[in-house]
Amino acid sequence: MTVLVFLDPIHPNGRIADASKPQLMATDLGATRGDGVFESLLARDGKPRKLQAHLDRLATSAASLELTIPAPAQWERAIATAIARHHAEDPASELVVKLLVTRGVEGASAPTAWVQVSAVTRKSRQQREAGLAITLLDRGYNSTAAERAPWLLMGAKTLSYAVNMAALRYAHAKGFDDAIFTSSDGMVLEGPTSTVLLATDRDGVKTLQTPLLKSGVLPGTTQGALFTAADAAGWCLGYGPLVPQDLFEADGVWLASSIRLLAPVNSIDGQSLSTTSDAGNALTVELTALLESAL
Amino acid sequence: MTVLVFLDPIHPNGRIADASKPQLMATDLGATRGDGVFESLLARDGKPRKLQAHLDRLATSAASLELTIPAPAQWERAIATAIARHHAEDPASELVVKLLVTRGVEGASAPTAWVQVSAVTRKSRQQREAGLAITLLDRGYNSTAAERAPWLLMGAKTLSYAVNMAALRYAHAKGFDDAIFTSSDGMVLEGPTSTVLLATDRDGVKTLQTPLLKSGVLPGTTQGALFTAADAAGWCLGYGPLVPQDLFEADGVWLASSIRLLAPVNSIDGQSLSTTSDAGNALTVELTALLESAL
Repeated sequence: MTVLVFLDPIHPNGRIADASKPQLMATDLGATRGDGVFESLLARDGKPRKLQAHLDRLATSAASLELTIPAPAQWERAIATAIARHHAEDPASELVVKLLVTRGVEGASAPTAWVQVSAVTRKSRQQREAGLAITLLDRGYNSTAAERAPWLLMGAKTLSYAVNMAALRYAHAKGFDDAIFTSSDGMVLEGPTSTVLLATDRDGVKTLQTPLLKSGVLPGTTQGALFTAADAAGWCLGYGPLVPQDLFEADGVWLASSIRLLAPVNSIDGQSLSTTSDAGNALTVELTALLESAL
Repeated sequence: MTVLVFLDPIHPNGRIADASKPQLMATDLGATRGDGVFESLLARDGKPRKLQAHLDRLATSAASLELTIPAPAQWERAIATAIARHHAEDPASELVVKLLVTRGVEGASAPTAWVQVSAVTRKSRQQREAGLAITLLDRGYNSTAAERAPWLLMGAKTLSYAVNMAALRYAHAKGFDDAIFTSSDGMVLEGPTSTVLLATDRDGVKTLQTPLLKSGVLPGTTQGALFTAADAAGWCLGYGPLVPQDLFEADGVWLASSIRLLAPVNSIDGQSLSTTSDAGNALTVELTALLESAL
């Protein structure tokens, strides 16, 4: 089942809407231009996880699009309403909570904002366990484009996800589970819906790395939470820049995202990674425990 | 007023829907992922213009996204229904006809497809007359990206237009009317919602040029119609590659699109172009007449 709750000034806790009926205007700029932003977050046992990080990133994305969106407190109340409503009809303990906001109907001045809640799919759970075969795909952009061209919206999580979806279809058609984007100048960027993480364990020094943020990747909320926890546990942290060779030489590689959490990358373009070794497995177990403690 | 007609197997001529009420599901992938394609075409005196070219491009865009869409005959009937309905309530002789199709509701197998008809805005008409002050903006992509990375969907007109809209907002905020994208390797590409054209008149030889298609620009239906008419009138045709210097040295530069038609580019980043000279004006008059004959 899917629960929809619209943010609505007349309904302080959000307006519950029937997800089986049309609820959006056909002239909404979200639908006609992909002109809006979103977040996907995990709720467990009725509680949204990393909520502040997601609300912060939603606000940052909206600012990139010069989009005025409802205040955090309104989102929080609507999220609580949606989770409670879902729980009343479905005992699922892990939920996907999507926050969506568009520029609204063409010519109108108010954004359209809603929360959508559904159960986490079996596929997401399986990929946490089994890991991923991935392919590297060129994102087309030079790693300096984000800094010089803010209109490219590279650090914003927008509703214009057609390229991300096309990249996933392309990867699936070639027999892969997922993809990692590289820049046209050969830097590792991110997955279409995830952040890249790699770990090394050398002479007892454990280091966790993620690609350079200013190369235009989305700042990962899961990466952020895990880095904080790993730092507290004595890990060294690194923020790139990374090239594909770094992935092949790492002791473990993962795609991090809010719903799937930490999915081990077993292979890249058919070449096995150390993630699948006993040492790699041990790193997955250790990092998963750190992440769980941070959610 | 806005008229909506949904393509629906149960209604061979399309299903008229109330544009003042919600008509889209909130879980439609067009709204949540910008996962779909569209066309905007002009109707005059009740007749859609360049209809075949738009239906062809819609099919090409859909193929890029591996999206199965309704057959041309279904679109044609729905367009006729929508235009007739608009005409019954509004005498406007120039209409914008939008064709939109999304991947449909998450998990469902059918696309969502509809036609939206409204009157051409005064702003579009004014820009045909007054011309445009434009700025050059980096599109971030190298001009070879389209050929090597089909998942970037560079030749497809998708609903993921957030970057195009952000580029226009950026241009407007800087005091410009519109923008022309350049590639990261310095080639002229296209406008956010238009095709770039330039003309030269040297020793009695008139040449009309547009940027290299394989550099990832959308094939323009207006450019296509005008090129066919100009060819028949004895013009030479050129298909790039073009660099900004070519725009500054041309005898005229225009942004071509289906609704605004041929909008003269008066200046680029504050530097006046020959489009505003008497000779440039004469070219605008001549090319506009050629285009009108081809619509």
